[in-house]
Amino acid sequence: MKKAVVLLSGGLDSATSLYWARAQGYHCACLIFDYGQRHRKEILQARKIAACAKSKAIVLPIHFPWKGSALTDRKIGVPKNALGKTKIPSTYVPARNTVFLSFAAACAEATGAAAIIIGANAVDFSGYPDCRPSYYRAMRGVIRRGTKAGAQGKPLLILTPLIRKTKPQIIRLGIKLGVPYQSTWSCYQGGNLPCGSCDSCLIRAAGFRAVGLQDPAIDRKKS
Amino acid sequence: MKKAVVLLSGGLDSATSLYWARAQGYHCACLIFDYGQRHRKEILQARKIAACAKSKAIVLPIHFPWKGSALTDRKIGVPKNALGKTKIPSTYVPARNTVFLSFAAACAEATGAAAIIIGANAVDFSGYPDCRPSYYRAMRGVIRRGTKAGAQGKPLLILTPLIRKTKPQIIRLGIKLGVPYQSTWSCYQGGNLPCGSCDSCLIRAAGFRAVGLQDPAIDRKKS
Repeated sequence: MKKAVVLLSGGLDSATSLYWARAQGYHCACLIFDYGQRHRKEILQARKIAACAKSKAIVLPIHFPWKGSALTDRKIGVPKNALGKTKIPSTYVPARNTVFLSFAAACAEATGAAAIIIGANAVDFSGYPDCRPSYYRAMRGVIRRGTKAGAQGKPLLILTPLIRKTKPQIIRLGIKLGVPYQSTWSCYQGGNLPCGSCDSCLIRAAGFRAVGLQDPAIDRKKS
Repeated sequence: MKKAVVLLSGGLDSATSLYWARAQGYHCACLIFDYGQRHRKEILQARKIAACAKSKAIVLPIHFPWKGSALTDRKIGVPKNALGKTKIPSTYVPARNTVFLSFAAACAEATGAAAIIIGANAVDFSGYPDCRPSYYRAMRGVIRRGTKAGAQGKPLLILTPLIRKTKPQIIRLGIKLGVPYQSTWSCYQGGNLPCGSCDSCLIRAAGFRAVGLQDPAIDRKKS
Protein backbone atom coordinates (compact mmCIF):
# COMPACT_ATOMS: atom_id res chain seq x y z
CA MET A 1 0.00 0.00 0.00
CA LYS A 2 1.46 3.39 -0.94
CA LYS A 3 2.30 5.63 2.01
CA ALA A 4 1.73 9.34 2.51
CA VAL A 5 2.54 11.95 5.11
CA VAL A 6 -0.43 14.25 5.72
CA LEU A 7 -0.10 17.64 7.38
CA LEU A 8 -2.95 17.79 9.86
CA SER A 9 -3.83 21.00 11.67
CA GLY A 10 -7.21 19.95 13.06
CA GLY A 11 -9.05 22.31 10.71
CA LEU A 12 -11.57 21.58 8.01
CA ASP A 13 -9.20 21.61 5.05
CA SER A 14 -6.51 19.36 6.46
CA ALA A 15 -9.12 16.86 7.72
CA THR A 16 -10.66 16.79 4.24
CA SER A 17 -7.27 16.24 2.65
CA LEU A 18 -6.59 13.32 5.02
CA TYR A 19 -9.84 11.65 3.99
CA TRP A 20 -9.11 12.43 0.34
CA ALA A 21 -5.70 10.75 0.72
CA ARG A 22 -7.29 7.64 2.21
CA ALA A 23 -9.79 7.55 -0.64
CA GLN A 24 -6.84 7.62 -3.06
CA GLY A 25 -5.50 4.50 -1.40
CA TYR A 26 -2.77 6.07 0.73
CA HIS A 27 -1.79 4.64 4.08
CA CYS A 28 -1.36 7.91 6.00
CA ALA A 29 0.82 9.14 8.83
CA CYS A 30 -0.38 12.53 10.12
CA LEU A 31 2.08 15.22 11.20
CA ILE A 32 0.58 17.56 13.78
CA PHE A 33 2.69 20.56 14.74
CA ASP A 34 2.85 22.00 18.22
CA TYR A 35 4.47 25.30 17.26
CA GLY A 36 3.37 27.61 20.02
CA GLN A 37 0.02 28.42 18.44
CA ARG A 38 -2.45 30.36 20.59
CA HIS A 39 -4.26 27.28 21.87
CA ARG A 40 -3.86 23.53 22.07
CA LYS A 41 -7.40 22.79 21.01
CA GLU A 42 -6.49 22.28 17.37
CA ILE A 43 -3.80 19.76 18.38
CA LEU A 44 -6.34 17.81 20.42
CA GLN A 45 -8.84 17.89 17.56
CA ALA A 46 -6.19 16.87 15.05
CA ARG A 47 -5.41 13.82 17.18
CA LYS A 48 -9.10 12.94 17.26
CA ILE A 49 -9.40 13.27 13.47
CA ALA A 50 -6.34 11.07 12.90
CA ALA A 51 -7.88 8.46 15.22
CA CYS A 52 -11.21 8.65 13.33
CA ALA A 53 -9.28 8.04 10.11
CA LYS A 54 -7.38 5.17 11.75
CA SER A 55 -4.15 6.93 10.90
CA LYS A 56 -0.99 7.34 12.93
CA ALA A 57 -0.58 10.76 14.54
CA ILE A 58 2.89 12.20 15.13
CA VAL A 59 2.86 15.40 17.19
CA LEU A 60 6.02 17.37 16.50
CA PRO A 61 7.18 20.18 18.76
CA ILE A 62 8.45 23.19 16.81
CA HIS A 63 10.25 25.95 18.64
CA PHE A 64 9.83 29.42 17.11
CA PRO A 65 11.58 31.63 19.70
CA TRP A 66 10.95 34.74 17.62
CA LYS A 67 7.57 36.44 17.53
CA GLY A 68 5.94 38.35 14.71
CA SER A 69 2.56 36.67 14.24
CA ALA A 70 -0.80 37.01 15.94
CA LEU A 71 -0.91 33.21 16.09
CA THR A 72 2.29 32.82 18.10
CA ASP A 73 2.42 36.07 20.06
CA ARG A 74 -0.44 36.66 22.45
CA LYS A 75 0.43 40.36 22.58
CA ILE A 76 -0.79 40.70 18.99
CA GLY A 77 -4.58 40.46 18.79
CA VAL A 78 -6.28 38.25 16.21
CA PRO A 79 -8.04 40.61 13.76
CA LYS A 80 -11.84 40.59 14.02
CA ASN A 81 -14.16 40.82 11.01
CA ALA A 82 -11.23 41.90 8.89
CA LEU A 83 -11.24 39.27 6.15
CA GLY A 84 -9.59 40.65 3.02
CA LYS A 85 -8.83 44.03 4.60
CA THR A 86 -5.08 43.49 4.48
CA LYS A 87 -3.31 41.57 1.77
CA ILE A 88 -1.38 39.43 4.25
CA PRO A 89 -2.95 39.58 7.73
CA SER A 90 -1.08 39.57 11.06
CA THR A 91 -1.99 35.91 11.54
CA TYR A 92 0.62 35.05 8.90
CA VAL A 93 3.34 32.94 10.58
CA PRO A 94 6.72 33.48 8.88
CA ALA A 95 7.68 30.52 6.68
CA ARG A 96 5.27 28.22 8.51
CA ASN A 97 4.31 25.98 5.62
CA THR A 98 7.95 25.75 4.52
CA VAL A 99 8.91 24.53 7.99
CA PHE A 100 5.99 22.08 8.03
CA LEU A 101 6.70 20.76 4.53
CA SER A 102 10.39 20.36 5.27
CA PHE A 103 9.57 18.14 8.26
CA ALA A 104 7.07 16.26 6.09
CA ALA A 105 9.78 15.71 3.49
CA ALA A 106 12.17 14.42 6.17
CA CYS A 107 9.49 12.12 7.56
CA ALA A 108 8.42 10.89 4.13
CA GLU A 109 11.95 10.18 3.01
CA ALA A 110 12.93 8.45 6.26
CA THR A 111 9.79 6.29 6.31
CA GLY A 112 9.55 5.48 2.61
CA ALA A 113 6.39 7.49 1.92
CA ALA A 114 5.74 8.46 -1.68
CA ALA A 115 3.74 11.62 -1.09
CA ILE A 116 3.16 14.61 1.15
CA ILE A 117 -0.41 15.86 1.30
CA ILE A 118 -1.37 19.33 2.46
CA GLY A 119 -4.81 20.95 2.53
CA ALA A 120 -3.62 24.36 1.35
CA ASN A 121 -6.23 26.45 -0.39
CA ALA A 122 -5.76 29.54 -2.52
CA VAL A 123 -9.41 30.42 -3.16
CA ASP A 124 -11.25 30.96 0.12
CA PHE A 125 -8.21 31.88 2.18
CA SER A 126 -6.61 34.67 4.17
CA GLY A 127 -4.01 35.56 1.56
CA TYR A 128 -1.00 33.77 3.01
CA PRO A 129 1.71 33.53 0.34
CA ASP A 130 2.54 29.93 1.29
CA CYS A 131 -0.92 28.77 0.26
CA ARG A 132 -0.63 29.67 -3.42
CA PRO A 133 0.06 27.24 -6.28
CA SER A 134 3.28 29.00 -7.33
CA TYR A 135 4.70 28.36 -3.87
CA TYR A 136 3.97 24.65 -4.13
CA ARG A 137 5.54 24.49 -7.57
CA ALA A 138 8.70 26.01 -6.07
CA MET A 139 8.57 23.61 -3.11
CA ARG A 140 8.34 20.63 -5.47
CA GLY A 141 11.58 21.86 -7.05
CA VAL A 142 13.24 21.91 -3.64
CA ILE A 143 12.11 18.38 -2.86
CA ARG A 144 13.29 17.20 -6.28
CA ARG A 145 16.70 18.85 -5.92
CA GLY A 146 17.38 18.51 -2.20
CA THR A 147 16.49 14.95 -1.27
CA LYS A 148 18.08 11.60 -1.89
CA ALA A 149 14.82 10.32 -3.38
CA GLY A 150 14.80 13.26 -5.80
CA ALA A 151 18.46 12.81 -6.73
CA GLN A 152 17.65 9.16 -7.50
CA GLY A 153 14.87 10.20 -9.85
CA LYS A 154 11.96 9.28 -7.57
CA PRO A 155 10.98 12.62 -6.03
CA LEU A 156 8.36 12.74 -3.32
CA LEU A 157 5.07 14.12 -4.53
CA ILE A 158 3.58 17.18 -2.86
CA LEU A 159 -0.17 16.93 -3.37
CA THR A 160 -2.49 19.87 -2.77
CA PRO A 161 -5.91 18.38 -3.58
CA LEU A 162 -7.90 21.40 -2.35
CA ILE A 163 -5.79 24.25 -3.64
CA ARG A 164 -8.20 25.47 -6.32
CA LYS A 165 -11.47 24.51 -4.68
CA THR A 166 -13.90 26.90 -3.04
CA LYS A 167 -14.83 26.26 0.58
CA PRO A 168 -18.30 24.95 -0.41
CA GLN A 169 -16.66 22.52 -2.84
CA ILE A 170 -14.31 21.34 -0.09
CA ILE A 171 -17.18 20.81 2.33
CA ARG A 172 -19.23 18.89 -0.23
CA LEU A 173 -16.21 16.68 -0.96
CA GLY A 174 -15.61 16.13 2.75
CA ILE A 175 -19.21 15.18 3.42
CA LYS A 176 -19.04 12.63 0.61
CA LEU A 177 -15.83 11.23 2.12
CA GLY A 178 -17.26 11.07 5.65
CA VAL A 179 -14.97 13.66 7.23
CA PRO A 180 -15.91 14.08 10.91
CA TYR A 181 -16.41 17.84 10.64
CA GLN A 182 -17.87 17.88 14.15
CA SER A 183 -14.33 17.17 15.37
CA THR A 184 -12.58 19.87 13.32
CA TRP A 185 -11.53 23.19 14.78
CA SER A 186 -10.77 26.14 12.52
CA CYS A 187 -10.99 29.14 14.87
CA TYR A 188 -7.72 30.96 15.61
CA GLN A 189 -8.87 31.39 19.20
CA GLY A 190 -9.20 28.52 21.63
CA GLY A 191 -12.54 29.26 23.30
CA ASN A 192 -15.39 26.86 24.01
CA LEU A 193 -17.15 28.03 20.88
CA PRO A 194 -15.52 29.36 17.71
CA CYS A 195 -15.14 33.16 17.99
CA GLY A 196 -17.07 33.73 14.77
CA SER A 197 -15.05 36.79 13.79
CA CYS A 198 -11.51 35.67 12.89
CA ASP A 199 -10.71 35.09 9.19
CA SER A 200 -10.83 31.36 9.65
CA CYS A 201 -14.28 31.40 11.31
CA LEU A 202 -15.65 33.77 8.67
CA ILE A 203 -14.43 31.63 5.77
CA ARG A 204 -15.73 28.44 7.37
CA ALA A 205 -19.14 29.89 8.24
CA ALA A 206 -19.57 31.22 4.69
CA GLY A 207 -18.72 27.77 3.36
CA PHE A 208 -21.34 25.97 5.42
CA ARG A 209 -23.88 28.70 4.64
CA ALA A 210 -23.23 28.25 0.92
CA VAL A 211 -23.93 24.51 1.08
CA GLY A 212 -27.02 25.09 3.23
CA LEU A 213 -25.76 23.20 6.27
CA GLN A 214 -25.28 23.97 9.93
CA ASP A 215 -21.63 23.62 10.94
CA PRO A 216 -21.59 20.34 12.91
CA ALA A 217 -18.73 21.59 15.12
CA ILE A 218 -21.00 24.38 16.37
CA ASP A 219 -24.01 22.06 16.65
CA ARG A 220 -21.95 19.78 18.85
CA LYS A 221 -20.80 22.65 21.06
CA LYS A 222 -24.32 23.94 21.58
CA SER A 223 -25.76 20.52 22.36
CA MET B 1 23.47 47.75 9.79
CA LYS B 2 22.07 44.95 7.60
CA LYS B 3 21.17 41.78 9.45
CA ALA B 4 21.73 38.15 8.52
CA VAL B 5 20.86 34.75 9.91
CA VAL B 6 23.84 32.38 9.69
CA LEU B 7 23.46 28.60 9.90
CA LEU B 8 26.25 27.51 12.21
CA SER B 9 27.11 23.84 12.69
CA GLY B 10 30.44 24.25 14.46
CA GLY B 11 32.34 22.98 11.44
CA LEU B 12 34.94 24.64 9.29
CA ASP B 13 32.66 25.77 6.48
CA SER B 14 29.92 27.33 8.57
CA ALA B 15 32.48 29.14 10.76
CA THR B 16 34.11 30.54 7.63
CA SER B 17 30.76 31.67 6.27
CA LEU B 18 30.01 33.46 9.54
CA TYR B 19 33.27 35.38 9.33
CA TRP B 20 32.63 36.06 5.63
CA ALA B 21 29.21 37.48 6.54
CA ARG B 22 30.74 39.77 9.14
CA ALA B 23 33.32 40.95 6.62
CA GLN B 24 30.44 41.81 4.27
CA GLY B 25 29.04 44.08 6.95
CA TYR B 26 26.27 41.83 8.24
CA HIS B 27 25.18 41.86 11.85
CA CYS B 28 24.73 38.12 12.38
CA ALA B 29 22.46 35.91 14.45
CA CYS B 30 23.64 32.29 14.40
CA LEU B 31 21.18 29.41 14.29
CA ILE B 32 22.60 26.25 15.83
CA PHE B 33 20.48 23.10 15.51
CA ASP B 34 20.24 20.46 18.17
CA TYR B 35 18.67 17.78 15.97
CA GLY B 36 19.71 14.59 17.69
CA GLN B 37 23.09 14.41 15.98
CA ARG B 38 25.52 11.79 17.30
CA HIS B 39 27.26 14.13 19.71
CA ARG B 40 26.85 17.53 21.32
CA LYS B 41 30.42 18.60 20.73
CA GLU B 42 29.59 20.45 17.53
CA ILE B 43 26.87 22.42 19.35
CA LEU B 44 29.34 23.44 22.05
CA GLN B 45 31.92 24.43 19.46
CA ALA B 46 29.34 26.36 17.45
CA ARG B 47 28.48 28.37 20.55
CA LYS B 48 32.17 29.14 21.07
CA ILE B 49 32.58 30.27 17.46
CA ALA B 50 29.52 32.54 17.68
CA ALA B 51 30.98 34.05 20.86
CA CYS B 52 34.36 34.58 19.13
CA ALA B 53 32.51 36.39 16.34
CA LYS B 54 30.57 38.44 18.90
CA SER B 55 27.37 37.14 17.36
CA LYS B 56 24.16 36.02 18.98
CA ALA B 57 23.70 32.23 19.16
CA ILE B 58 20.23 30.70 19.04
CA VAL B 59 20.22 26.96 19.74
CA LEU B 60 17.08 25.42 18.26
CA PRO B 61 15.88 21.96 19.24
CA ILE B 62 14.68 19.93 16.26
CA HIS B 63 12.82 16.70 16.83
CA PHE B 64 13.31 14.05 14.13
CA PRO B 65 11.52 11.04 15.62
CA TRP B 66 12.22 8.96 12.52
CA LYS B 67 15.62 7.41 11.89
CA GLY B 68 17.34 6.70 8.60
CA SER B 69 20.71 8.42 8.91
CA ALA B 70 24.03 7.44 10.44
CA LEU B 71 24.11 10.90 12.02
CA THR B 72 20.86 10.51 13.94
CA ASP B 73 20.70 6.75 14.50
CA ARG B 74 23.50 5.27 16.56
CA LYS B 75 22.64 1.82 15.26
CA ILE B 76 23.96 2.86 11.84
CA GLY B 77 27.75 3.14 11.85
CA VAL B 78 29.50 6.17 10.35
CA PRO B 79 31.35 4.91 7.24
CA LYS B 80 35.15 4.81 7.59
CA ASN B 81 37.56 5.71 4.80
CA ALA B 82 34.67 5.56 2.33
CA LEU B 83 34.75 9.04 0.81
CA GLY B 84 33.23 8.96 -2.66
CA LYS B 85 32.45 5.26 -2.50
CA THR B 86 28.69 5.82 -2.49
CA LYS B 87 26.98 8.65 -4.32
CA ILE B 88 24.96 9.67 -1.26
CA PRO B 89 26.43 8.18 1.93
CA SER B 90 24.48 6.94 4.96
CA THR B 91 25.35 10.15 6.82
CA TYR B 92 22.80 11.96 4.64
CA VAL B 93 20.02 13.27 6.91
CA PRO B 94 16.69 13.43 5.05
CA ALA B 95 15.77 17.01 4.12
CA ARG B 96 18.12 18.42 6.75
CA ASN B 97 19.15 21.59 4.97
CA THR B 98 15.55 22.25 3.94
CA VAL B 99 14.49 22.05 7.58
CA PHE B 100 17.39 24.30 8.63
CA LEU B 101 16.76 26.85 5.89
CA SER B 102 13.05 26.96 6.61
CA PHE B 103 13.77 27.86 10.23
CA ALA B 104 16.32 30.42 9.03
CA ALA B 105 13.67 31.94 6.77
CA ALA B 106 11.21 32.12 9.66
CA CYS B 107 13.84 33.70 11.90
CA ALA B 108 14.99 36.14 9.23
CA GLU B 109 11.49 37.25 8.38
CA ALA B 110 10.43 37.61 12.00
CA THR B 111 13.55 39.55 12.98
CA GLY B 112 13.89 41.72 9.87
CA ALA B 113 17.08 40.12 8.55
CA ALA B 114 17.83 40.59 4.87
CA ALA B 115 19.84 37.43 4.26
CA ILE B 116 20.37 33.81 5.21
CA ILE B 117 23.95 32.57 4.97
CA ILE B 118 24.89 28.91 4.74
CA GLY B 119 28.33 27.39 4.30
CA ALA B 120 27.21 24.69 1.86
CA ASN B 121 29.87 23.40 -0.47
CA ALA B 122 29.49 21.36 -3.63
CA VAL B 123 33.15 20.76 -4.46
CA ASP B 124 34.91 19.02 -1.57
CA PHE B 125 31.82 17.39 -0.11
CA SER B 126 30.17 14.06 0.63
CA GLY B 127 27.65 14.25 -2.19
CA TYR B 128 24.58 15.36 -0.26
CA PRO B 129 21.96 16.61 -2.72
CA ASP B 130 21.07 19.59 -0.49
CA CYS B 131 24.55 21.04 -0.89
CA ARG B 132 24.37 21.61 -4.65
CA PRO B 133 23.77 24.95 -6.40
CA SER B 134 20.57 23.75 -8.13
CA TYR B 135 19.05 23.03 -4.73
CA TYR B 136 19.77 26.56 -3.53
CA ARG B 137 18.27 28.02 -6.70
CA ALA B 138 15.11 26.06 -5.97
CA MET B 139 15.14 27.15 -2.33
CA ARG B 140 15.41 30.80 -3.36
CA GLY B 141 12.22 30.28 -5.37
CA VAL B 142 10.46 28.95 -2.27
CA ILE B 143 11.57 31.90 -0.20
CA ARG B 144 10.47 34.31 -2.91
CA ARG B 145 7.06 32.67 -3.31
CA GLY B 146 6.29 31.56 0.22
CA THR B 147 7.13 34.49 2.47
CA LYS B 148 5.52 37.84 3.14
CA ALA B 149 8.81 39.56 2.33
CA GLY B 150 8.90 37.78 -1.03
CA ALA B 151 5.28 38.59 -1.82
CA GLN B 152 6.09 42.22 -1.11
CA GLY B 153 8.95 42.15 -3.59
CA LYS B 154 11.78 42.11 -1.06
CA PRO B 155 12.76 38.43 -0.88
CA LEU B 156 15.29 37.28 1.65
CA LEU B 157 18.62 36.44 0.10
CA ILE B 158 20.08 32.96 0.51
CA LEU B 159 23.84 33.37 0.24
CA THR B 160 26.17 30.41 -0.26
CA PRO B 161 29.59 32.08 -0.34
CA LEU B 162 31.55 28.81 -0.30
CA ILE B 163 29.51 26.68 -2.65
CA ARG B 164 31.99 26.56 -5.53
CA LYS B 165 35.22 26.81 -3.54
CA THR B 166 37.62 23.97 -2.88
CA LYS B 167 38.44 23.16 0.74
CA PRO B 168 41.92 24.72 0.42
CA GLN B 169 40.34 27.92 -0.95
CA ILE B 170 37.91 27.97 1.99
CA ILE B 171 40.71 27.50 4.51
CA ARG B 172 42.81 30.26 2.93
CA LEU B 173 39.81 32.60 3.00
CA GLY B 174 39.10 31.69 6.62
CA ILE B 175 42.67 32.29 7.72
CA LYS B 176 42.57 35.72 6.09
CA LEU B 177 39.31 36.46 7.92
CA GLY B 178 40.63 35.26 11.30
CA VAL B 179 38.30 32.26 11.70
CA PRO B 180 39.15 30.45 14.96
CA TYR B 181 39.69 27.07 13.30
CA GLN B 182 41.04 25.69 16.56
CA SER B 183 37.46 25.90 17.86
CA THR B 184 35.80 24.20 14.90
CA TRP B 185 34.72 20.57 14.94
CA SER B 186 34.03 18.70 11.70
CA CYS B 187 34.20 15.04 12.74
CA TYR B 188 30.93 13.11 12.64
CA GLN B 189 32.00 11.32 15.80
CA GLY B 190 32.22 13.06 19.17
CA GLY B 191 35.50 11.72 20.51
CA ASN B 192 38.32 13.64 22.16
CA LEU B 193 40.18 13.76 18.88
CA PRO B 194 38.66 13.74 15.39
CA CYS B 195 38.29 10.12 14.21
CA GLY B 196 40.32 10.80 11.07
CA SER B 197 38.33 8.38 8.94
CA CYS B 198 34.82 9.76 8.42
CA ASP B 199 34.13 11.71 5.21
CA SER B 200 34.22 14.99 7.06
CA CYS B 201 37.61 14.29 8.68
CA LEU B 202 39.06 13.11 5.36
CA ILE B 203 37.93 16.21 3.47
CA ARG B 204 39.17 18.52 6.21
CA ALA B 205 42.56 16.84 6.54
CA ALA B 206 43.10 16.96 2.77
CA GLY B 207 42.25 20.68 2.83
CA PHE B 208 44.80 21.52 5.50
CA ARG B 209 47.37 19.30 3.82
CA ALA B 210 46.84 21.14 0.54
CA VAL B 211 47.51 24.52 2.11
CA GLY B 212 50.53 23.14 3.98
CA LEU B 213 49.19 23.75 7.46
CA GLN B 214 48.62 21.63 10.52
CA ASP B 215 44.92 21.59 11.49
CA PRO B 216 44.82 23.87 14.57
CA ALA B 217 41.93 21.88 16.07
CA ILE B 218 44.19 18.82 16.19
CA ASP B 219 47.18 20.84 17.38
CA ARG B 220 45.12 22.14 20.25
CA LYS B 221 43.95 18.63 21.20
CA LYS B 222 47.44 17.24 21.22
CA SER B 223 48.89 20.08 23.25
